[in-house]
Amino acid sequence: MSKVAIIMGSKSDFNVVKPAADVLKSFGVETEVRVISAHRTPEEAHGFSLNAEKRGVEVIICAAGKAAHLGGVIAANTTLPVIGLPVKTDMMGGLDSLLSIVQMPSGIPVACVGVNGGENAGLLALQILGVKYPEISVKLKEYKKNMRKKINADDEALQREISQT
Amino acid sequence: MSKVAIIMGSKSDFNVVKPAADVLKSFGVETEVRVISAHRTPEEAHGFSLNAEKRGVEVIICAAGKAAHLGGVIAANTTLPVIGLPVKTDMMGGLDSLLSIVQMPSGIPVACVGVNGGENAGLLALQILGVKYPEISVKLKEYKKNMRKKINADDEALQREISQT
Amino acid sequence: MSKVAIIMGSKSDFNVVKPAADVLKSFGVETEVRVISAHRTPEEAHGFSLNAEKRGVEVIICAAGKAAHLGGVIAANTTLPVIGLPVKTDMMGGLDSLLSIVQMPSGIPVACVGVNGGENAGLLALQILGVKYPEISVKLKEYKKNMRKKINADDEALQREISQT
Amino acid sequence: MSKVAIIMGSKSDFNVVKPAADVLKSFGVETEVRVISAHRTPEEAHGFSLNAEKRGVEVIICAAGKAAHLGGVIAANTTLPVIGLPVKTDMMGGLDSLLSIVQMPSGIPVACVGVNGGENAGLLALQILGVKYPEISVKLKEYKKNMRKKINADDEALQREISQT
Amino acid sequence: MSKVAIIMGSKSDFNVVKPAADVLKSFGVETEVRVISAHRTPEEAHGFSLNAEKRGVEVIICAAGKAAHLGGVIAANTTLPVIGLPVKTDMMGGLDSLLSIVQMPSGIPVACVGVNGGENAGLLALQILGVKYPEISVKLKEYKKNMRKKINADDEALQREISQT
Amino acid sequence: MSKVAIIMGSKSDFNVVKPAADVLKSFGVETEVRVISAHRTPEEAHGFSLNAEKRGVEVIICAAGKAAHLGGVIAANTTLPVIGLPVKTDMMGGLDSLLSIVQMPSGIPVACVGVNGGENAGLLALQILGVKYPEISVKLKEYKKNMRKKINADDEALQREISQT
Amino acid sequence: MSKVAIIMGSKSDFNVVKPAADVLKSFGVETEVRVISAHRTPEEAHGFSLNAEKRGVEVIICAAGKAAHLGGVIAANTTLPVIGLPVKTDMMGGLDSLLSIVQMPSGIPVACVGVNGGENAGLLALQILGVKYPEISVKLKEYKKNMRKKINADDEALQREISQT
Amino acid sequence: MSKVAIIMGSKSDFNVVKPAADVLKSFGVETEVRVISAHRTPEEAHGFSLNAEKRGVEVIICAAGKAAHLGGVIAANTTLPVIGLPVKTDMMGGLDSLLSIVQMPSGIPVACVGVNGGENAGLLALQILGVKYPEISVKLKEYKKNMRKKINADDEALQREISQT
Repeated sequence: MSKVAIIMGSKSDFNVVKPAADVLKSFGVETEVRVISAHRTPEEAHGFSLNAEKRGVEVIICAAGKAAHLGGVIAANTTLPVIGLPVKTDMMGGLDSLLSIVQMPSGIPVACVGVNGGENAGLLALQILGVKYPEISVKLKEYKKNMRKKINADDEALQREISQT
Repeated sequence: MSKVAIIMGSKSDFNVVKPAADVLKSFGVETEVRVISAHRTPEEAHGFSLNAEKRGVEVIICAAGKAAHLGGVIAANTTLPVIGLPVKTDMMGGLDSLLSIVQMPSGIPVACVGVNGGENAGLLALQILGVKYPEISVKLKEYKKNMRKKINADDEALQREISQT
Repeated sequence: MSKVAIIMGSKSDFNVVKPAADVLKSFGVETEVRVISAHRTPEEAHGFSLNAEKRGVEVIICAAGKAAHLGGVIAANTTLPVIGLPVKTDMMGGLDSLLSIVQMPSGIPVACVGVNGGENAGLLALQILGVKYPEISVKLKEYKKNMRKKINADDEALQREISQT
Repeated sequence: MSKVAIIMGSKSDFNVVKPAADVLKSFGVETEVRVISAHRTPEEAHGFSLNAEKRGVEVIICAAGKAAHLGGVIAANTTLPVIGLPVKTDMMGGLDSLLSIVQMPSGIPVACVGVNGGENAGLLALQILGVKYPEISVKLKEYKKNMRKKINADDEALQREISQT
Repeated sequence: MSKVAIIMGSKSDFNVVKPAADVLKSFGVETEVRVISAHRTPEEAHGFSLNAEKRGVEVIICAAGKAAHLGGVIAANTTLPVIGLPVKTDMMGGLDSLLSIVQMPSGIPVACVGVNGGENAGLLALQILGVKYPEISVKLKEYKKNMRKKINADDEALQREISQT
Repeated sequence: MSKVAIIMGSKSDFNVVKPAADVLKSFGVETEVRVISAHRTPEEAHGFSLNAEKRGVEVIICAAGKAAHLGGVIAANTTLPVIGLPVKTDMMGGLDSLLSIVQMPSGIPVACVGVNGGENAGLLALQILGVKYPEISVKLKEYKKNMRKKINADDEALQREISQT
Repeated sequence: MSKVAIIMGSKSDFNVVKPAADVLKSFGVETEVRVISAHRTPEEAHGFSLNAEKRGVEVIICAAGKAAHLGGVIAANTTLPVIGLPVKTDMMGGLDSLLSIVQMPSGIPVACVGVNGGENAGLLALQILGVKYPEISVKLKEYKKNMRKKINADDEALQREISQT
Repeated sequence: MSKVAIIMGSKSDFNVVKPAADVLKSFGVETEVRVISAHRTPEEAHGFSLNAEKRGVEVIICAAGKAAHLGGVIAANTTLPVIGLPVKTDMMGGLDSLLSIVQMPSGIPVACVGVNGGENAGLLALQILGVKYPEISVKLKEYKKNMRKKINADDEALQREISQT
């Protein structure tokens, strides 16, 4: 039973979605990854969003580009939190995707992350789950510490490099 | 039986939609005007788009603002031509609405007109019907002539005003 | 006798136009493809738009980039539906082409599709023709079904790939 | 003990924040509303974010405009989900606020809603809480039904109005 | 016989055009002001541009808004210098008008001034005429001196005001 | 004695400037090409603009990118027509260059052409000279005819190609 | 002898400049306020920038709108730090002013603050002076404390208001 | 003891920062280069900004991309002048970084330079130091002279090249 579902509008978005799936996997959170298009498979989108909660899904991530309607279409039929992941395009670096996802009308929110922000979509799903599951919250604190260590190591490495030149 | 259906995502968009309804009415084309939201009434949107063609609708106009998904959601379930009418917003004068409507993925076109271009949405519907119904095509030519006369009259009035100053 | 005419402002836009021609051809719709520039061959543009309807053309697709005036110039002289196809440029990914095409003044609509949306321009032409010609409408429904199958197949393939890793 | 904390960078943002507080109150969710600036009261921001989880806060909403750093600064010190609420400005309708909030670097997500989307920020907080608290999830479904009824009523009212003209 | 022709696409643009006409009048340059629409009166636009040079016109100013094609359409049929004057719109303050005018394809330049830059359109026409007519060039130098005096006076007035507070 | 001066802010802009120089050369118009920076060689810019007219220059083309002040700085000290040629940058495809050139304050116009529109800058200079020198005007008409022939040839070639497939 | 000079391109920018002058005055720093236009009074701009340092000026603030060249033109002739203050315009809320000021070419920096950020321009000048003059640095720390108190008071007032409702 | 500190949010920004470090080094100004992230190492950012002045740092340069909060976060805890250096991104060429840095709220200025303007960030730091240290001011004048010579040499080289063709 998947806690998180990741949907993408087109299989070509998989590389944007992968970091989300990877971080969820590294936290041991059961995740399903699907190709469902708001426009090309509306029945599947409809069915998915109506049944997700019953099937045990607790957070949904929707990745889409250009006129990116997937997040809004899924959010229309569920009260689960929906995370929108805008895919980079040629139109001003993905501003079309971003605005199509984030500017939702009152009543139907989509939680938008940055353009091509796959890892952050995954982490946001984990933070949402962390409200309910303390063990995920604990792991997130560990993750944060490791990021800090990584930056500190970068900082020290750079000092060394510079002092040697 | 309506040939044209005009849908808006929120009743507050009525002033943007009205010029479309007006021009269709002035051409004597049966038109229905509906409030259906892609996000707040997804069942109604779904049902409407699946049944529109059977009910005799031949062109659909969808007005929406911000993350304007209505046109795409309707187009997903019909092969009728769908005209997207972006509503002006505070976000760069409606660029969010425009991009959400026009940047549709391959396979599901929406015919986008300019921001708040209600009259043009109506005229485009008439041009599409004109391909099938010669009497509408004839009236469109009349309409074009009248526009020309109106501009010519403006031109002459301006010449007179200026020559008198 | 061509039902659809596709015009481009410059021969260098042919790759953007080709998917429109291809989808029309695959539907068996007679199509002509022309290089006519609103600015460099204004007489040809004028003549073309005045005579298109008499010659049996029912929908016109105009592809142009940057200050993309071709759609508007053609629409000025005909009441046939004119589809504008904005060509990608270096200026914000084609925002110049898009705005030059979509923001038409009241009275002269151009039906705009997304930047480099050649296939959608062709499909929109088919949807417009489908209002008149039931056999095209039938084929469009088939096309839609195939798109759905393609996405479903992508979805299944992805499930398999993931379950194996 | 507040489950949700709403922070704004300046008291002048209160009108944007109020719909979030109102919807949370209408759901009976304990909420605190604070004025804390990432730039003018960095110590308070630091202290707040370090202690929020211990104090029982489960979701944080951060409203800010222009170079809107509040969400990122709070998210830096907590693993609670942080919702960013961009405030409208004169710069392209709030594009500065939006990009400053949504384009977070990998590792520190902020869940962004639309510009001035106060009600949606509140609803997103409720959806996140709904994952843990079934009673909130039940109420959200009720809320959704009421929205649908409201749109349906608008639709019927419009039909009546139009049929009378 | 007018040396300069000012054309606007719609009578509603007159307030933007007036400063151009005024500065030309103040220089004693014969000017005609016309309402001609590239889209609504294409025949008039065509005729005007073909005959302007023969009639003695030496510079043409074209004011238009949104999908502002007038300058390009006029430039297509003449080798006279054409000045494009973008009219402010709701779309990002006139960015649509500006891009539609300035981004002309190779071969057909339009000399674009700033959005609502009526006075500058008039002055640019005068600078172009000044290349041929030395008396206009002399007056432009006078105009420049007066601007300088005006700024100097503003500067002195401000010093006085401040020193008194 | 040069009739046209082309100035660029940096030698790296030469490839953008070259088409302007080439078209002027092909018309037999004496042209000088200079590297003068508004910011790095302000004295040279000052001197150049004050003396250009006396030296016989009749039109000045200024190419610059990013905060492109060169056109404005030159225009400040001369009443000759100044053509601004925005150079493409990474910032939205040169929108910074374009706005810095075209949005001049009242009183000091710069005649802006499209981003990287070198050939058009040269042709606009020729059109301005054509007002004074009939022989240049004659050649411009020839140039226009050749463009038309070129497009017609492209059109015919395309027809042939397509009919053979 | 003024330590800080504030220059504006037009007297109409005074309301944007005033908060800069006010904060400098409140710190007791001698300040001069001038109207000097890069385009309309280039000689004055040239003279001012060449002599400012000799006259004892240590920081220069330049406010300008649209094609805002003032900062760059002043910076061209001095090595004093130049602060650019973009004035809000109709073009995307002042994006033209902002880009014209901030995107300076390598070699000639301008220190840009936010659009209409008069107070920040003044504070930045004070921070720069604070590097040299410890008494200004001390006052800046006091200013920062007062801002903090003000936000804290707003926070407390809001808590009280809310607890009473 | 470093007079200038250069901080970057991620080691991957080093190539943008390097020209700043290089120009400072070439002026003989002691400089430290650090990797400190506002989001991933908030404690380090906090500690750095609180102690920088005591440690003798006089100017701080902060380079960051996307939601670039580093400059604001550092400026919140110090009264030293903070220079913001926006890093180019895929989002409109770095407009996200630029707006996140420059649009600071009243009270906390950040001195923003152009996108990827590393050398200018370094030169601005030198100009600020030059107010206090006359020897740096002298070297800046030398630097300016060399830039001028370089442009003059480019100009002469171009003249030669052109005269030979």
